[in-house]
Amino acid sequence: MPKKQTSWVTAADVARHAGVSRSAVSRAFSPTASIAPETRERVMEAARSLGYQVNLIAREMIMQRSSMVGVVTAGFENPFRAKLLAHIIAALGRHKLTPIVVNADDPVQIRQSLDMLLSYRIGGVVMTSASPPLGLARQYLEGEIPVVMINRASNLPGADVAVSDNAAGASLAAHMLIDAGATRLAFVGPTRPSYNGKARCAGFLRATRHIANADPHRVHRVDTHGTTGDTYECGVAAAHALLSQASRPDGVFCSSDLLALGFIDTARRHFAMRVPEDVRIVGFDDIPAASYENYQLSTIAQDTHALADAATDMLIERRNAYSGASRTRVVPVARVVRHSCGLTPANRLP
Amino acid sequence: MPKKQTSWVTAADVARHAGVSRSAVSRAFSPTASIAPETRERVMEAARSLGYQVNLIAREMIMQRSSMVGVVTAGFENPFRAKLLAHIIAALGRHKLTPIVVNADDPVQIRQSLDMLLSYRIGGVVMTSASPPLGLARQYLEGEIPVVMINRASNLPGADVAVSDNAAGASLAAHMLIDAGATRLAFVGPTRPSYNGKARCAGFLRATRHIANADPHRVHRVDTHGTTGDTYECGVAAAHALLSQASRPDGVFCSSDLLALGFIDTARRHFAMRVPEDVRIVGFDDIPAASYENYQLSTIAQDTHALADAATDMLIERRNAYSGASRTRVVPVARVVRHSCGLTPANRLP
Repeated sequence: MPKKQTSWVTAADVARHAGVSRSAVSRAFSPTASIAPETRERVMEAARSLGYQVNLIAREMIMQRSSMVGVVTAGFENPFRAKLLAHIIAALGRHKLTPIVVNADDPVQIRQSLDMLLSYRIGGVVMTSASPPLGLARQYLEGEIPVVMINRASNLPGADVAVSDNAAGASLAAHMLIDAGATRLAFVGPTRPSYNGKARCAGFLRATRHIANADPHRVHRVDTHGTTGDTYECGVAAAHALLSQASRPDGVFCSSDLLALGFIDTARRHFAMRVPEDVRIVGFDDIPAASYENYQLSTIAQDTHALADAATDMLIERRNAYSGASRTRVVPVARVVRHSCGLTPANRLP
Repeated sequence: MPKKQTSWVTAADVARHAGVSRSAVSRAFSPTASIAPETRERVMEAARSLGYQVNLIAREMIMQRSSMVGVVTAGFENPFRAKLLAHIIAALGRHKLTPIVVNADDPVQIRQSLDMLLSYRIGGVVMTSASPPLGLARQYLEGEIPVVMINRASNLPGADVAVSDNAAGASLAAHMLIDAGATRLAFVGPTRPSYNGKARCAGFLRATRHIANADPHRVHRVDTHGTTGDTYECGVAAAHALLSQASRPDGVFCSSDLLALGFIDTARRHFAMRVPEDVRIVGFDDIPAASYENYQLSTIAQDTHALADAATDMLIERRNAYSGASRTRVVPVARVVRHSCGLTPANRLP
C-alpha cells in the first residue's frame, strides 16, 4: 500500500509558526514578490523546522490547488469505456483540469501510479467502473482529495458517484422484449459481483414480475466467465449454456453490448437461430458495433457525455468545499430500437 | 497557435547573473537547504530581474526533469488506438513517467492542452497516428522537448518515429490474397493523405506487381469518406462503390480492420456475396472484432506493445541527451490467418 500522507504541513502552519501571514509564505517562495529579506528567512526557518515538504510548496507555487486529476480506468479495449474516457478527458479540459490517466489493468502499475498521484497532491480522482480497489479511494479521501466514481457503488463516505439509471434501463429492456412478443426471458450478465451487472439484473427481474405475459420462473441468470465478464467471448459462452437447454429463451437481455454481440453470433452460427425471429436480443451501452449491419442491436444507450459532466461537476464542487456526505447523480439512459429486438413499427411507441 | 516559449530563463542563467553556483539557486528556493540569507536574497533578486518564471522553478524543485509526458491521441473509439494508448500508458509507467492524455479530437481543447503542457515544461510528448498538426510538434522541438510520433511520417528534424512495417504488412496481405486464388485485387483505404494509408497502398501495389498471376491493372484505389476514413461506415461505402462495378474484385485488402468489417457485412447483405468464396478479405490492425465469429477476419497484426516500447525508449534516450537527427524504428508486423482470406491449410505455410 502507498504510504499514508494524511498530515501534510500546510502553508498556513508555516505562517502560524513564523508569525507571518499566509500570503507572506507564498511571497517568500516567489522571487517576483515584494518581501523583506528577514521575513523571507523567518518563513524559510519555519518551513525547515516543520518539515514543510518542498514539493508541496512547489505545487502550491504553481497553483493554489493542483489542476491535475487522476483518471483511473481499465479495459481500454471495451469501446464503451474508451468513449467514456474520451468524454472524461474532454469534460476535465473544459474546466482547465489536466487528466493523468492511470490504467488499472496492471496491478503493479496501479500501486506505483497512485503513490505518484498522492505525492503530486493531486486535485481529485475519477474512478470508472472497472477494477481499482476501493482501498485506494479511501487513501485519497483521507487526504481530503475529492473522489468521484462512475458506475460504481457509493459505499465510501465522502466519495461521490455518477451512475447510469440501470434500473430504468433494465426495465426498458424488459418491455422491449415483451412488447415484441417474447415470453421466455433470460438475463445474461457477469458472474462477478459488479455494480452494473447486479443493478441491471435486479431491475430486469423486477420489471418482468409486473408484466402479465412474462413467466418470472423463466428468467435465468447466466454466469459468464473471464476477467471482467463483459466480453464478446463471455457472450459466446453464455449462448452455448442457455441455448443448449431444452427450453430455449426467446428474449435475452444482455448486460452489455459486447455480451450481446457474442450471443447473436453464436445463436446464428451454432444453433441456426434467427435474430429476432427465434430469439430477441437487447444489450446495454450502445457501442459503435451495435449499429453494424450484422448486429443491428437494440440496446440501452448510456449517456457518456452526461456521466463525464456529472462526475466533473461533483469533483469541482468538492474541490471548492470539501465537506458533506457522498452524493449520487443518476444519469438517464435511452432505448435504441434496432432490428435485434423484433419490435415492429406498430409496437415501437413510445 | 500557442505562444512561443522558446527562450526560457534557466536556473543556470540566474546563477550566472547572481554570481553564485547553480546549486545555490536550487538551495535558495528550498527551505530545508543550508544557505546564507544574503545569498538567498541575491538569487531572488537575479531571478526577479531576469523574469525567471516561478512555475518553472517549482517544476525543477519537484524534479530535475519533469516526469510528465503528454500523450496526444484521437479516435478513442477505434479499438486499435485505444489498445495502443493503453500500452503507451503502461510503457511510460514502467519508466516512472506520468502520462497526461490530450484528446486531439477536440480542436478547442487541443490548443489549450498543448499550451498547458508547454507551461508545465513537460518531459516529452508522444503523438499517435491521428490528427494533431505537426506545427504543434515543432513548438515542442524548439523548446528541446523530445517528440516521438507513432505511425506518422518523419518529416520534422529532431522528432523520432516508431512505425509499423507497413510495406511488409501490405506485401503479406497481397500474398495471402493471391495464394488463396484471388486475381482481381482491390485496395481499400482512406482518401485523406494518411501516412499509413499511403504506405500500405504503395506496398500492396508494389507486391502485386511482382506476382505472376495478378493483373496489376485490376488493383483499384477506392476513396472512402468521413473524418478519418478508417471507420466501419467507410468500409460500407467502399463496398458499395467497388461491388457495384461490372468487374467485381475477388480479393480486397483493407487498410484497417474497421474498414474490412464494413466491407464484409455489405458484401454479404447487399450483394449476396460469400466471404471468402466470392471475395477474399484481409484487414490491418488485428482489433478484437477481427476474431468475432461473424467476421473471422484475416489481418496484419500491429504489435502495439512493441510500438509503445520503441516510442518510450526513444523518448527516454532523447531526454538523456537531446541531440542528433530524427530516428525511425520500424516495428515488425505479423499475418493472422482466419477464414476471411480463403487460405486453406495446404497453402497457409509459411
